[in-house]
Amino acid sequence: MNKNAIGVFDSGLGGLTAMKELCKIMPHEDIVYFGDTSRVPYGTRSADTIIRYARQDLNFLSTFEIKAALVACGTISAVALDTIKSDYSFPIVGVIESAAKAALKISKNRRIGILGTQATVNSGAYERKLTEADPNCKTMSIPCPLFVPLVENGHTDPNDPLTNGAIELYLSKLLPFKADTIILGCTHYPIIAQAIRRFVGSETNLINPGKEAALTISSLLHENGMSNNAGVGKHSYYVSDSTDNFETYGSVFMGRSINGEVHKIDIEKY
Amino acid sequence: MNKNAIGVFDSGLGGLTAMKELCKIMPHEDIVYFGDTSRVPYGTRSADTIIRYARQDLNFLSTFEIKAALVACGTISAVALDTIKSDYSFPIVGVIESAAKAALKISKNRRIGILGTQATVNSGAYERKLTEADPNCKTMSIPCPLFVPLVENGHTDPNDPLTNGAIELYLSKLLPFKADTIILGCTHYPIIAQAIRRFVGSETNLINPGKEAALTISSLLHENGMSNNAGVGKHSYYVSDSTDNFETYGSVFMGRSINGEVHKIDIEKY
Repeated sequence: MNKNAIGVFDSGLGGLTAMKELCKIMPHEDIVYFGDTSRVPYGTRSADTIIRYARQDLNFLSTFEIKAALVACGTISAVALDTIKSDYSFPIVGVIESAAKAALKISKNRRIGILGTQATVNSGAYERKLTEADPNCKTMSIPCPLFVPLVENGHTDPNDPLTNGAIELYLSKLLPFKADTIILGCTHYPIIAQAIRRFVGSETNLINPGKEAALTISSLLHENGMSNNAGVGKHSYYVSDSTDNFETYGSVFMGRSINGEVHKIDIEKY
Repeated sequence: MNKNAIGVFDSGLGGLTAMKELCKIMPHEDIVYFGDTSRVPYGTRSADTIIRYARQDLNFLSTFEIKAALVACGTISAVALDTIKSDYSFPIVGVIESAAKAALKISKNRRIGILGTQATVNSGAYERKLTEADPNCKTMSIPCPLFVPLVENGHTDPNDPLTNGAIELYLSKLLPFKADTIILGCTHYPIIAQAIRRFVGSETNLINPGKEAALTISSLLHENGMSNNAGVGKHSYYVSDSTDNFETYGSVFMGRSINGEVHKIDIEKY
């Protein structure tokens, strides 16, 4: 047993969709969340900038005695994780590998669709993980740059006309590919999963990478005798911009009101 | 005559819509542009963060011998300008005051609509400038948070269904107010002026704040004998993230291909 906390971080508050899954799977664990709200979004920035920001995020989480870190951000997992993970003494689990494994486990026709930010798609990280594990697997990646602003501006109702317009615009290209499994490759996308599900049909598998990464962390800690099995885990939240409205915006991603203290830190110091 | 350059800055590349107007009005002037592309957008951040970023932007421009600065960003003009402008020895012209003056000059019914980012609208800066100058003037402000991501993702065709959907969503609220003049209170909005114009009708005046700020700078320099009247102005561009794709994205806002050198700087050093 190891009582240290698990760190979760993201470019903003979207990573709370992964935190939500981790809380459900590991209710006894202390969890520290960091959202880089003063520099969100990462998805439109260059690889150098994303790597620099990700190092600062992990340096900050390292100031706590954490036993593992979950990179909730698709962009950081795709662009920075392989470069920086050996610099830290604790295991760091990204969303890409976990989601790719889950997709290959469930797909029957080996045709997998990937939705993500422009940076995630440009990185080719999902395709690489998928085809390394199964060279016969076929992939099609679609950048969906309007999904994040739509979710962040409250267009989350399954009947929202703008969200459905964007889904039609992006996912029409995917239909002829006949993917039986689609990876929702950005923290925000599970929030509009219901509208996406309606467009692609009920037979298609939708993979939530945050949930898959939470399951990976859980297995890792269990296998190494490092999980907590008693008590109620404490949750704390750190952001790099104002904590005003954290509850309002955060609860959209957590799917419930947020328990735990919220603090502001200066990420440029790390 | 003063041969020093004019500085123009913005949270990103949107301020190039103001630079474009300044180049047209003052073709003999050297102009230095800074776009804070590693931290864009400012519109969703707290006032403290916006003020800190704006100081760094002006500190960077101060490393050139500039004779005046144009704040192309509606958010910075609204939230930070009054706080920081006295810290600098050169005049700093924001978009708010210039656009408010132009709106009052042209409006007949004294009913003025303001479209802007959430931060610009929350600041109440346009309303304050308008009602200070004319206490009988009535205003209605509408936050249009999806316009920036729509423009940045290429949805600029006047017939684009998503852009027209967003225009309908936001501007329907403005129609009963019967504004005869609408301020396009964010650098990106002039790019979709044609679609906005179609929705509000040809009788409504649309104010482009970047153009009005450029006219203000031009008058200020002429009146003080500080303008250049000969030669072709040199233009240089600085950004805080990668210079890749600057030409592609920048030309959307400049309305033409970009002449001049593009450099990357580390804005956190200023």
